Formats: sequence, C-alpha cells, structure tokens
Amino acid sequence: MAPITPDVSRPRAFGADTAVAVGDDGVVTAELSDRWDRLGGGPLGGYSLALALRALGLATSFPDPLTVSATFVRPAEHGPAGITTEIVRKGRTVATISGRLRQAGSERLRLTATFADRGRADDPTMQFGEPPAMPEPDDCVDPFTAMRPTGTVADRVDYRFGRTPGWLQGAPTGDPTIEGWIRFADAGGGSETTTVDGVGLALLVDAVPPAVLELGATGSSTIELTVHLRARPAPGWLAFRASTRSVTGGYHDEDLDLWDSTGTLVAQSRQLARVTGLV
Amino acid sequence: MAPITPDVSRPRAFGADTAVAVGDDGVVTAELSDRWDRLGGGPLGGYSLALALRALGLATSFPDPLTVSATFVRPAEHGPAGITTEIVRKGRTVATISGRLRQAGSERLRLTATFADRGRADDPTMQFGEPPAMPEPDDCVDPFTAMRPTGTVADRVDYRFGRTPGWLQGAPTGDPTIEGWIRFADAGGGSETTTVDGVGLALLVDAVPPAVLELGATGSSTIELTVHLRARPAPGWLAFRASTRSVTGGYHDEDLDLWDSTGTLVAQSRQLARVTGLV
Repeated sequence: MAPITPDVSRPRAFGADTAVAVGDDGVVTAELSDRWDRLGGGPLGGYSLALALRALGLATSFPDPLTVSATFVRPAEHGPAGITTEIVRKGRTVATISGRLRQAGSERLRLTATFADRGRADDPTMQFGEPPAMPEPDDCVDPFTAMRPTGTVADRVDYRFGRTPGWLQGAPTGDPTIEGWIRFADAGGGSETTTVDGVGLALLVDAVPPAVLELGATGSSTIELTVHLRARPAPGWLAFRASTRSVTGGYHDEDLDLWDSTGTLVAQSRQLARVTGLV
Repeated sequence: MAPITPDVSRPRAFGADTAVAVGDDGVVTAELSDRWDRLGGGPLGGYSLALALRALGLATSFPDPLTVSATFVRPAEHGPAGITTEIVRKGRTVATISGRLRQAGSERLRLTATFADRGRADDPTMQFGEPPAMPEPDDCVDPFTAMRPTGTVADRVDYRFGRTPGWLQGAPTGDPTIEGWIRFADAGGGSETTTVDGVGLALLVDAVPPAVLELGATGSSTIELTVHLRARPAPGWLAFRASTRSVTGGYHDEDLDLWDSTGTLVAQSRQLARVTGLV
C-alpha cells in the first residue's frame, strides 16, 4: 500500500475523511466517514464526489482539477469503497482521468475529471458578473444555531445566509435562490490560513441546501453534477449563490457559484436532479 | 447489422448524418459527415457529441436524453467511427449509458448520458427567468449572408442575431454575450412541423460562435461540455443566449441556453474550454 496522501493545509476533518491509498491491484481504497451525511441521512453526494476526485488525482501529477462530471448511480454508504481509475488522456498541459466508486460490489458514482497545473498559468484573467450583494458573514444569519445534527455536513460546514430562508421557517418564498457564505468549520476561527483545494470545493458546492426548498420541495436527488474549478481560493469564507431555472417533468437544474474572499469566482457547479415533494 | 435508425421527423441532413447502426460485435458504427465542420475546419464538437449521443440511445428504450456530459479527448475527423456503449444503470424511470467514440483506434470523445421518457412525465413545470428580449427572427441580422462556407455548420444551421456581433466587424465589444435565434436550415421554411429532438439540441448548443470572440479571442477548444435537455422543443426558431463568466489561466466557461418558440427553456449547456488569441 502506498502511504495515505498527506496535505497539511487541508481542513483537518475533510483531509482525514478524504484520505485515499493505492492498493497493490491499482484500485484506490478509501473509507466513507459518517461525518458528512445529508440532513436526510446517508453520505452527501458531494462528499463521495470529493473522495472519488481525490482518488483520480493519484493517477496524474497535475495537482489542480479543472472540471469534474459525475453521475450518481446509486446512493453511497458509510464504510469502505474502492475507486478504479483509468487514464483517458495524458497531455502536456492537461490530463483526463475517469473513475468509478464501488461499494459492496456495486457502482455508486461514475466520474471523469480533467486536471492541470495552475502554477504554470500565466494567461490573462477576466471576470464578468459579481458575487451576491449581502452583509459580511458576522452580520448574517446562522441557519443551524438551533439544529446542528452530529454526523451531518451541517456539523462540519459553517453557513451564513443573507436572510433567513423561507423554507427554514415553514414558509417557502417561491423564489428558488439561496445566497450566503460557506466554509469548512475547522478552516475558520484562528486558522484563516487554511486553504481549500479543488477537491474541497467539489464538496462545498453540494453542501448548500437545494434552492428548490424555496418552492416547497421536500428533497432533491442529484443525477448528474458537473463542477468547473476556476481558481485556487484565497483563505476565508466563500460566498455562494444557488439558483434553479426550471422544474420540468420532475427534474430540476441547480447552478451554484462560489467566490472567494477576494471576489474571485472559484467554482461553478451545475446539476440535474430529481425533485420530490412538489405536487 | 441492425437497420439504420429511422426518424422521419428529424431535419433531413441532420437525420442522415447522425445515422447509427449496431454491428454484430455490439459496437455502434457511424460516419462523420463533412457537412458539419467548424469554420476553422474539422467536425464541430457538437456534431460528434450528437452522433455519439444517438449511439448511446440505442442501448436504452427510454427515448429522451435528460443530460449528457462529454469530454473531448482528441479532435474528431471525417469518416468512419465506432462507438462502444456500456449500460451503467437501468432503472424504472431512467437509464444511464456511458460510451466512447473512437476513430482509427484512438478515442476522440467520452460521454455519459441519462435517458428517460418524457411522455410519462406528469409532474409540475415551473420556469424562472426569461428568454432574451430581441426582435423576431425576420427583423434580426443574418450574420452569414456574405459568408456561408459549404461544408460548415454555417451552411446547415440558420442564425439570426439581435445585433451584428462586434467580432464579425473586427471590433469585439468586450462583453462576452451573444443572443439570437437558431434552427436547422432544413427545418425552417415550409416545414415548420419538423421538430428537433434532444440529440439535435446537443448539436445546436455547440453551433453558436463562442462568446469569447467578443473579448478578442481567436478560438476556443472545448474540454468538457454538459447539456441538460429540459423539454421537447416546439417547432420553429430557438432563442439562444451564450455567455462567459470568466477567463482564468487560459480557460473559459460558456453557458448557452435555448428556449423554443413558446418561450420554454429546452436546453442548458455549459462548457469549459481552452481559449486562444487572448494576449
């Protein structure tokens, strides 16, 4: 067995819970922790995605995921997982790796990611559009003060919302947009130098409650999720905006953008999901 | 050999040029026509994507692609192609199929798509946001009146722009947004009953000139493209809006949305691409 991937800069719990190792057969082994559950139970999709993306990164020397697309085949469970990886393309500037995460012999997640090395990037940067206009995190609402169930992502991630969401008060607003701030719980406080890597961003984009809750939906099951990682974030809170454009035939889209504390767009995610609870 | 997939409702050239057949070995065979080239030469990415998506559809009885994610591994060429398909999940309401398009022994495109049957959908439909505000197609600019090179997608697809793009006049506007109308050239005129299926939409989302041309870019090579197919379009022109949010380290995103003639959002695409010509 190769040693556990070390990265001291990662938020502590997230780093530990996305540790991966290559077995003699080339299959990457990992353990899905019980610390990153959805509020509805079971590991958050973004957590299994992050774990699998970490595994794919072992197959390339390029450190930065640029984009990852995943199909959620079956719900993942706590416990051991094996991730098989395949090098699709190994280029001079990018490498593309495909993979599958399996548990108990059944495929849970299939993904393809392309990696590069941002350290070599010296090309121009232009940005259009702005992060949400909202109060600073300290002046925002902590939605989980009264409810931070142990073992859930709400216990491992800090949230601040520009205004208290309607769905949290039993009165969905009808506007499927959620804006606020997010960070790993153990990346804040006195350790503002802890940075989040692309794998961490892949978890965070899926850690925000779905915007369709503001339409009265009771839940959402992701079918496909693509994340474009656009820049290494500066330390500190990340601003997010999640929004849904349409619900058709029981499916909805959701876009979620993340900006770092300097206002740089660092991640764009989009998913297609099955919605429940809308009658 | 199974017979060529028939669908009389498709635009004629597109239907013929995305014909696929299953060989005895299970590999789907197809021929990349020379009628759908990019202006820069070589088959349009969206054309090889459409062809591969058509091939994946042979592996499921669900007629409607809901979402497809593709990685462009190497440029495709005119001529024969083989598409291998694998059933990832065969559920009661959706099926997920993966595939690879190969030419001359080398992989050109890798994709995963999820299919369903929209005919069974009786769930609510809600839509937020509006199509672009612009004149009717007949009152818009045809950007290719003076230049409609035979063999290119500009010869097979009709475009109308709300205003003449700056880049076409040698004066990029600096605003990476392009709005207009689009349709298959042989789906218009007297045959307004011709509808475009999800596979056709997958080509059209990639047939619009990249919005980064308005930043002075000279080209764009797609790395990853995901298309969510949200509804079967009504016949007629489709409104589009293409926009880029940021260019970082030589990569840019592009979102392209399509609305049908009734104002329904029918497709949402997003890509990450390598940009050229920005200094």
